[in-house]
Amino acid sequence: MSPKITVELLRQLRHAMRNGKCIAEPIQAYIVPSGDAHQSEYIAPCDCRREFICGFNGSAGTAIVTEQHAALWTDGRYFLQASQQMDNNWTLMKMGLKETLSQEDWLISVLPENSRVGVDPWIIAADQWKNMSKALSGAGHSLVAVQDNLIDAVWEDRPARPSTKLIALGLKYTGLTWQDKITALRGKMAERKISWFVVTALDEIAWLFNLRGSDIEYNPVFFAYAIIGISSIKLFVDSKRLLDTAVRQHLELDSPSKPDLTVQCFPYESVFTELRAVCAALAPKDKMWICDKASCALTEVIPKAHRAAIPYTPLCLAKAVKNPTEIQGMKMAHIKDAVALCELFAWLEKEIPKGTVTEISAADRAEELRSQQKDFVGLSFPTISSVGPNGAIIHYRPLPETNRTLSINEVYLIDSGAQYRDGTTDVTRTVHFGTPSDYEKECFTYVLKGHIAVSAAVFPNGTKGHLLDSFARAALWDSGLDYLHGTGHGVGCFLNVHEGPCGISYKTFADEPLEAGMIVSDEPGYYEDGSFGIRLENVVLVVPAKTKYNYRNRGSLTFEPLTLVPIQLKMINTDLLTQKERDWVNDYHRKCLETIGAEMERQGRKEALDWLIRETQPIV
Amino acid sequence: MSPKITVELLRQLRHAMRNGKCIAEPIQAYIVPSGDAHQSEYIAPCDCRREFICGFNGSAGTAIVTEQHAALWTDGRYFLQASQQMDNNWTLMKMGLKETLSQEDWLISVLPENSRVGVDPWIIAADQWKNMSKALSGAGHSLVAVQDNLIDAVWEDRPARPSTKLIALGLKYTGLTWQDKITALRGKMAERKISWFVVTALDEIAWLFNLRGSDIEYNPVFFAYAIIGISSIKLFVDSKRLLDTAVRQHLELDSPSKPDLTVQCFPYESVFTELRAVCAALAPKDKMWICDKASCALTEVIPKAHRAAIPYTPLCLAKAVKNPTEIQGMKMAHIKDAVALCELFAWLEKEIPKGTVTEISAADRAEELRSQQKDFVGLSFPTISSVGPNGAIIHYRPLPETNRTLSINEVYLIDSGAQYRDGTTDVTRTVHFGTPSDYEKECFTYVLKGHIAVSAAVFPNGTKGHLLDSFARAALWDSGLDYLHGTGHGVGCFLNVHEGPCGISYKTFADEPLEAGMIVSDEPGYYEDGSFGIRLENVVLVVPAKTKYNYRNRGSLTFEPLTLVPIQLKMINTDLLTQKERDWVNDYHRKCLETIGAEMERQGRKEALDWLIRETQPIV
Repeated sequence: MSPKITVELLRQLRHAMRNGKCIAEPIQAYIVPSGDAHQSEYIAPCDCRREFICGFNGSAGTAIVTEQHAALWTDGRYFLQASQQMDNNWTLMKMGLKETLSQEDWLISVLPENSRVGVDPWIIAADQWKNMSKALSGAGHSLVAVQDNLIDAVWEDRPARPSTKLIALGLKYTGLTWQDKITALRGKMAERKISWFVVTALDEIAWLFNLRGSDIEYNPVFFAYAIIGISSIKLFVDSKRLLDTAVRQHLELDSPSKPDLTVQCFPYESVFTELRAVCAALAPKDKMWICDKASCALTEVIPKAHRAAIPYTPLCLAKAVKNPTEIQGMKMAHIKDAVALCELFAWLEKEIPKGTVTEISAADRAEELRSQQKDFVGLSFPTISSVGPNGAIIHYRPLPETNRTLSINEVYLIDSGAQYRDGTTDVTRTVHFGTPSDYEKECFTYVLKGHIAVSAAVFPNGTKGHLLDSFARAALWDSGLDYLHGTGHGVGCFLNVHEGPCGISYKTFADEPLEAGMIVSDEPGYYEDGSFGIRLENVVLVVPAKTKYNYRNRGSLTFEPLTLVPIQLKMINTDLLTQKERDWVNDYHRKCLETIGAEMERQGRKEALDWLIRETQPIV
Repeated sequence: MSPKITVELLRQLRHAMRNGKCIAEPIQAYIVPSGDAHQSEYIAPCDCRREFICGFNGSAGTAIVTEQHAALWTDGRYFLQASQQMDNNWTLMKMGLKETLSQEDWLISVLPENSRVGVDPWIIAADQWKNMSKALSGAGHSLVAVQDNLIDAVWEDRPARPSTKLIALGLKYTGLTWQDKITALRGKMAERKISWFVVTALDEIAWLFNLRGSDIEYNPVFFAYAIIGISSIKLFVDSKRLLDTAVRQHLELDSPSKPDLTVQCFPYESVFTELRAVCAALAPKDKMWICDKASCALTEVIPKAHRAAIPYTPLCLAKAVKNPTEIQGMKMAHIKDAVALCELFAWLEKEIPKGTVTEISAADRAEELRSQQKDFVGLSFPTISSVGPNGAIIHYRPLPETNRTLSINEVYLIDSGAQYRDGTTDVTRTVHFGTPSDYEKECFTYVLKGHIAVSAAVFPNGTKGHLLDSFARAALWDSGLDYLHGTGHGVGCFLNVHEGPCGISYKTFADEPLEAGMIVSDEPGYYEDGSFGIRLENVVLVVPAKTKYNYRNRGSLTFEPLTLVPIQLKMINTDLLTQKERDWVNDYHRKCLETIGAEMERQGRKEALDWLIRETQPIV
């Protein structure tokens, strides 16, 4: 991987920062956040401004350019990757390390007095704006909104915003009509005396309307905004998309069944002016919900007296708790996904000794096998297919220049998943096709112990996921090891593979309590820079737990694995497992064999079934 | 325990809330926080305003009185106690339960429009003021500073502020002179370009000047403020206290060795005017540190442009990491304390069958035995001596009307500690003098497993204590049990038994990382309302841990118990322990026997030694 050469780009950007044509008054620093106007994690090519300016293409990171400096902040998953993708005009700021300055502190340390720091108000969240602005003004600087994006000004050939075909999902997949969802949402609005709700997150809009698109690779969403009133529904999308008959029927555009369930459609770009019009007509007591992660630009349209900023929207919460149809769909998706992944491993076992399988061809083969499964739509994120030292790059994606050949001498880590119409998958397995070293097995076993500790944890209703994070680390910590990422994230149902408001991470305190029906990942790891990476990830469903007692009638929860792919036994040092842990592994493998085996038989995939039977033998 | 009758008091307070003599413009609600002007947890009788108005005398709680309502917020430790001490004019607001409104939300739900909510700015912390004020103004109300305290206005016979004798601690106890501490503090100020630091926490002032007092029961502190400049030291205390020759010599008041180490003394009350004078003379770039937990009144004196509010002061951090002399002192204090407590248990064993020992007489006996130890100063908090159902009242304190007789039929919980000149102790043991039930043993064993999980935890340098909290709960959670308090708190060295900035609690995210030399408690519990209470508390020292590997050279930490009092074996169901846990118990008891046994021999306390030998037999 060779770094992007940015000398000329930075010269142009700095010129734009001073240039009267681009900006009324010069700015001394320009912040380039990672997201789009919807604060999406994965973004469309037209929104990859941070990657364009610095070369680093990971899913999280913020670039800041001053007259003298250029710096990029990213987290532990990306330290190695960012350092490889950026040239030496850029300083890598490693978030999470004690010595790393925050963006604010860094700006304060490098800026001349009374500096103006610019940012595009459409791609910075309102809460981030607020914090940044406060910190800067405390030090005598100011944060200013630069309406015309300065990256776009220097970006020739910037791609157009996508406008892909929309697909409407029926009750069979969603369990609830969009009309039901709107009605439930309005109930929550009425409870809190809220008259309007501005929906800005793409997955919330897709979920609410039971529509999917493919504007952003891996995420079945489409560019849109929505403004939901107590008796009106305003949807902002590219109008071309509404020519499709199925979509028109789905939204009842031509024959609405009820006046208050009539969808008014507006062009995507008109959200600003339309929101301004709605705000102008507000009664004195009217309150409007908007997520505090919505763009600063849109948030500022709502007068403060009417604005009710919330950390998580009611849609985010409703979407997180899957209904029975969604749970059933997620289970089916994981069964199909497991069939494909088991087939991949059976195939790899045969092919690797020939020396012809690479990280890329293995990833391609995985995609091909998944695509044979029913209702397959696409991948849910770029496959991380990594051998040996590449495995230590936490969010590695194989490229021709980094592509390694799989062999019987190195650990292979594959983190992959797919979108099916009935659900979204995300699974990581770490395997060895020869004989793993004692040290590799030892590390793998600690990771497995952590995985089991979370998966088998029993905890009271109302517990936030972050309180479980240390369970995943205890075995590693005991030996002086650790990993620099969270343990789990929420997973959407045929939606984004990462979603809020719950997860399992030491980094947050603001996650919402876990509830039965929520779905998260459980993915501890261990990474030895330059040698190997280990991660073991299942998607798990939060379910009620039966306990011997029931303190204060709170009830208890635990997890049920949805991912049913064997954990490679030869990577386990069984001496390091307790009897309870051995039982967990055996129970898990029994369930894999029963459920996935039955599906393999149904699909007539004999070779994979043989492999599955071999890989699910009980350990003692 | 009969509740305090508050009808007449509330009538008077409500009168004062409307009365032009007390307040310029009527207020619709009055907030009575728990603390004093220094945000102390334990307070002097003259500052017990919340207790005076509602009757509840626990260490944490806030009362709010409106025209129609009176409500008290407190946490799980005090639900039972508060409900017993308050009459039915008061509503108990149980903090930490999902359905309980916050103070802000409650006020908003009960107040008429545009209400004025009053509070004494001296006894509300600046950060609390800010949050409360913001929430109220968001709902159209306002928070107003009421200069003359309205409780004082209705409190006849309010006690005077204490001014006890000060004692100066030599190097033998402190390890560092106050001059060294001032110099180190100034180094930190210079690093951050801070020219002044306003010290408001009583334990920080006591620690900084190596002085102790007894103004507040159980906490060896004295009422004072300090303002530390780069070349000046202003100390605000009752001037009578400075007539003492030892104190004058200690502070070098009559012959300062260096100009910048000259202590200027001012009357306690003049801090406001003196701080105003310092602020008036500030250079434009001067910055002044003040803790954001300092009083709103004092914080507001500092112009915003000069104010650098910090969540924890450098003194709080320096004080938390004990130096070798302090560690040695804490170890000695815990050895002496263990001798006394073992003697108590040996005595109880003999006396209880006679039926003459009560909660109060047991607590008195414990105090008497402690007072025989060298350098004993007093208790570090009111002894919790509780039998059977009283044990479920988490911060119970026996009173004549609740006093139960110890018997061989009920569980006995004693949580007690002392101040010695060389250190502060805090220990809880739960014991049975007859035959505990299987259920009592089961619950005790889960609590023990939690205690061990924390005590034996190994974790990376830089880990915050809150990440360890779930370790203490896992065994309880597995069976559907839990406890509604944090797992541990910082412990001072001959200072407050509760101190920041570190601890082990799911409730906080803002604790500072644990460091070698810090001292915290490890005290999981289980409480069955109406039946029994179990808690198992050791004070533990953070020490470096030797691990097999050392990921990224971060180093690891673990805990070393300072408390060395046997854990009653008959309360343990050893079948529920793992081999590792059994080994921990045996190692711990071996250390108790060696260390405390040697001290008992030295002190010639044979009976206690016999008991200790019996109680530290290995389990299998």
